[in-house]
Amino acid sequence: MKFKVKLFPIKTDKYVVVMNQSDADELGLLEGDRVKVIYDSRNSFNATVQIAVGMIDRGEIGITSCIEDRCIISEDFEVKVVPVPKPKSVEYIKKKLDGGKLGKDEIYSIIKDIVDNTLNEIEMTAFVLSSYLNGMDFDEIEWMTRAMIETGETLSFERGIVVDKHSIGGVPGNKISLLIVPTIAAAGLLIPKTASRAITSASGTADTMEVFADVNLHIDEIKEITEKVGGVIAWGGATEIAPADDKIIHVEYPLAIDPKPQLLASVMAKKGAIGARYAVIDIPTGEGSKVPNVEKGRELANDFVEMGRRLGLNITCALTYGGQPVGRAVGPALEAWEALKAMEEKRGSASLLEKALGIAGILFEMTGKATNGYAYAKELFESGKTLEKFMEIVEAQGGEKVKSDDIPIGDKVYKIKSNFEGAVVGVSNQRIVKIARAAGAPKDKGAGVYIHKKKGEIVSVGDDLVTIYAEKDWKLDNAIEVAQKEPPILVSGMILEKYPSYRYV
Amino acid sequence: MKFKVKLFPIKTDKYVVVMNQSDADELGLLEGDRVKVIYDSRNSFNATVQIAVGMIDRGEIGITSCIEDRCIISEDFEVKVVPVPKPKSVEYIKKKLDGGKLGKDEIYSIIKDIVDNTLNEIEMTAFVLSSYLNGMDFDEIEWMTRAMIETGETLSFERGIVVDKHSIGGVPGNKISLLIVPTIAAAGLLIPKTASRAITSASGTADTMEVFADVNLHIDEIKEITEKVGGVIAWGGATEIAPADDKIIHVEYPLAIDPKPQLLASVMAKKGAIGARYAVIDIPTGEGSKVPNVEKGRELANDFVEMGRRLGLNITCALTYGGQPVGRAVGPALEAWEALKAMEEKRGSASLLEKALGIAGILFEMTGKATNGYAYAKELFESGKTLEKFMEIVEAQGGEKVKSDDIPIGDKVYKIKSNFEGAVVGVSNQRIVKIARAAGAPKDKGAGVYIHKKKGEIVSVGDDLVTIYAEKDWKLDNAIEVAQKEPPILVSGMILEKYPSYRYV
Repeated sequence: MKFKVKLFPIKTDKYVVVMNQSDADELGLLEGDRVKVIYDSRNSFNATVQIAVGMIDRGEIGITSCIEDRCIISEDFEVKVVPVPKPKSVEYIKKKLDGGKLGKDEIYSIIKDIVDNTLNEIEMTAFVLSSYLNGMDFDEIEWMTRAMIETGETLSFERGIVVDKHSIGGVPGNKISLLIVPTIAAAGLLIPKTASRAITSASGTADTMEVFADVNLHIDEIKEITEKVGGVIAWGGATEIAPADDKIIHVEYPLAIDPKPQLLASVMAKKGAIGARYAVIDIPTGEGSKVPNVEKGRELANDFVEMGRRLGLNITCALTYGGQPVGRAVGPALEAWEALKAMEEKRGSASLLEKALGIAGILFEMTGKATNGYAYAKELFESGKTLEKFMEIVEAQGGEKVKSDDIPIGDKVYKIKSNFEGAVVGVSNQRIVKIARAAGAPKDKGAGVYIHKKKGEIVSVGDDLVTIYAEKDWKLDNAIEVAQKEPPILVSGMILEKYPSYRYV
Repeated sequence: MKFKVKLFPIKTDKYVVVMNQSDADELGLLEGDRVKVIYDSRNSFNATVQIAVGMIDRGEIGITSCIEDRCIISEDFEVKVVPVPKPKSVEYIKKKLDGGKLGKDEIYSIIKDIVDNTLNEIEMTAFVLSSYLNGMDFDEIEWMTRAMIETGETLSFERGIVVDKHSIGGVPGNKISLLIVPTIAAAGLLIPKTASRAITSASGTADTMEVFADVNLHIDEIKEITEKVGGVIAWGGATEIAPADDKIIHVEYPLAIDPKPQLLASVMAKKGAIGARYAVIDIPTGEGSKVPNVEKGRELANDFVEMGRRLGLNITCALTYGGQPVGRAVGPALEAWEALKAMEEKRGSASLLEKALGIAGILFEMTGKATNGYAYAKELFESGKTLEKFMEIVEAQGGEKVKSDDIPIGDKVYKIKSNFEGAVVGVSNQRIVKIARAAGAPKDKGAGVYIHKKKGEIVSVGDDLVTIYAEKDWKLDNAIEVAQKEPPILVSGMILEKYPSYRYV
């Protein structure tokens, strides 16, 4: 059937066509069915059917104007619409739902259809949940990883040893990449780090780095900068590296799930795609982080190492303490400030420096750069080479040299003070993040939380526990309300049941 | 934040608001997040966020104009938008995903949010898949059934015994309700039958009945007609009886799954909501139907009986032969013709009459109307009382008295003939449906397939196997193409591997 086009200015993951009910019935189409839209006598695209109410007459078709940045159709087009069958990959998803093991080609076809936006949300959700509930074996995870790499852009370097690090997330204030990348690059290794933006956290590494420089880099810019200065901190979302991952996250987010097969494949695909030969995986462990205890952490670590073996990638996992935020600052500008301040002063929060230099050290030992990696990392850091390299990277990414105290922090400020005397027995990751987000993070770069007292520290009545920063009064008010309803710092005496008392980190 | 409204004429299950990326960032909103849209200073509705590309400036908001038939907002509105948290029911879905057992209130909250369109497709899919993969116990299924009844309209009759029948589907040509309902009503029982339209089949009972009369009846019309003539055949989708069901089907359809807990709850809720005290569940069993073998059929039958016991509803299940179509006609008008012809001539296809009168008979025995129910049903049918009552029902639903030969059938006709000599060893349910749908069914009432030779029948070279009917030439061509690619009738000699040889039904 032929239709006259009406445009809808909605950005969708895939083309949606909006049809009159009678036309849809005529073609035997139900909402959610797929059609091929043929325009221009030769060109076509696939789209999903929605039923219109009013304003779309018979013979007319509404089309969402663009997917991502591609806009092909305009109002004066006449198009032909033909129903198309469900893609084969839906059968494979069904097979996995029913407990079957997928073959290499079947997984490839699913990942390809995810990347091409051929699958709808229901089908995507079914895929993710089938592996959440039925799991995948190592073969399947390996094939999924390879499919994710192959359906996206990849990097390769003519010379040099490429390394990487990845944190599986779940602990706030984890600005360690800002210290690790320049330390590694300062030692002559290559580290083309792609990082994420916050989804549910207060700041992703990409958000934090953006305080200093542009992070929306294309893959050839990442390559060029890495070849020039040894390292880069870019937003992975601006590249087409393992693009299936973002689309999978889109359906995981509403359900707050992160199935292990997808987690493993996503991390390994990103490392594989940039051509890394050595990588450290940071697995924050402890109450309120993604991995509740060391046993689970070890299990996951084993899986990562096995996947590395299969993909020819040398993996070491670092189980790190994730029971409270890393360092004291949470929020893009505050974290940027804390990281830069540490580089400038060559000292800082023990949890931040030990973790960052410890992970850099592991990479030095894996690559044979040093026998005592931590000592070597510390030496680079204390000699000022880390800071120097960081500024080179910032400038290569189009930023300017700055001092930590020049970084603008939100000027709406509120301090939460202690009404009790005692010791801090808990700093809640979730509550700190909730307050920082209510204050405006990650969108308002200057918004966030500074933690004055961490676990094990002694508190007197009237002492500052946290300071909330915001750029807008109403957001500060929101954040204060959140903090008062759910206090982020627990001082002994406030609660009946005491938390296990961890050593101050 | 305040916004100026721009309207989108798209019918959606729930309100969607389309925002500028910067406004969404400002409010900390991601695609798929929920907001409350406050208009008119007092009134508000919940909506899901989508991100615009172009044409929506900062401070503007696109709103889909209507959900279902309610359209509240117009262009000149100014609205306030506030983020709202995920509904509690998402937590419960998560609990079920993780293998937990849901409580009564938790299930109610999920079903209520499904009915209110509060859950998005990803969350709905997660709910359906959690019970597909983790199952539900009888408590949970009972609570889900009760929740489905309570969140919709219900019927009750001051006097009379209310009975019902339900076929779980999967076998084409199953026009038995057109014979059962008038037979039952002719005996003085009440049978307010709500039926479905075809989703993937060639004709639902509602589509077939629509050939004779209006099936879009409101619940009070269903009551009124049942009280007047004893029976009705209405489209359930026009009522608000167990409305959760349609919404659940919406996410089951793309995955072609029908989890047992949802199947049980959906059927039982519909029977419970109309106040039935006795019901027969028809479970078509056999190759190419929903239930592959008798063992599975018995299992399902046990579950239905147990659910009936819990809900105070007397259930008998009939395992019926579903390995080939019921009767010989498939498609709305053809099926209407076959049913009416049988009533007029008091004879017809054995599979149709045995099944319809058998099920009516079971209801007569359950209610104590007869000790030999089948004989009683046959007597009513052969005396002409079934036909007489059917015409009363048709007229009560606004239709006119017709003769079977007045029913218009598609005039584009093609006969498929046998190239072989032998016996029919298979009639494929799926292929017959595929041909009928390609020919235009169920939208084109006159389209469908007539089967000349069924299993066990002897075929000579040149004999008609099936006749395809269509209303349009191009659809007939499509159907012929489908039939040639995937022949619906298997004659021995055409295939190497022989099907089990069933007795002719």
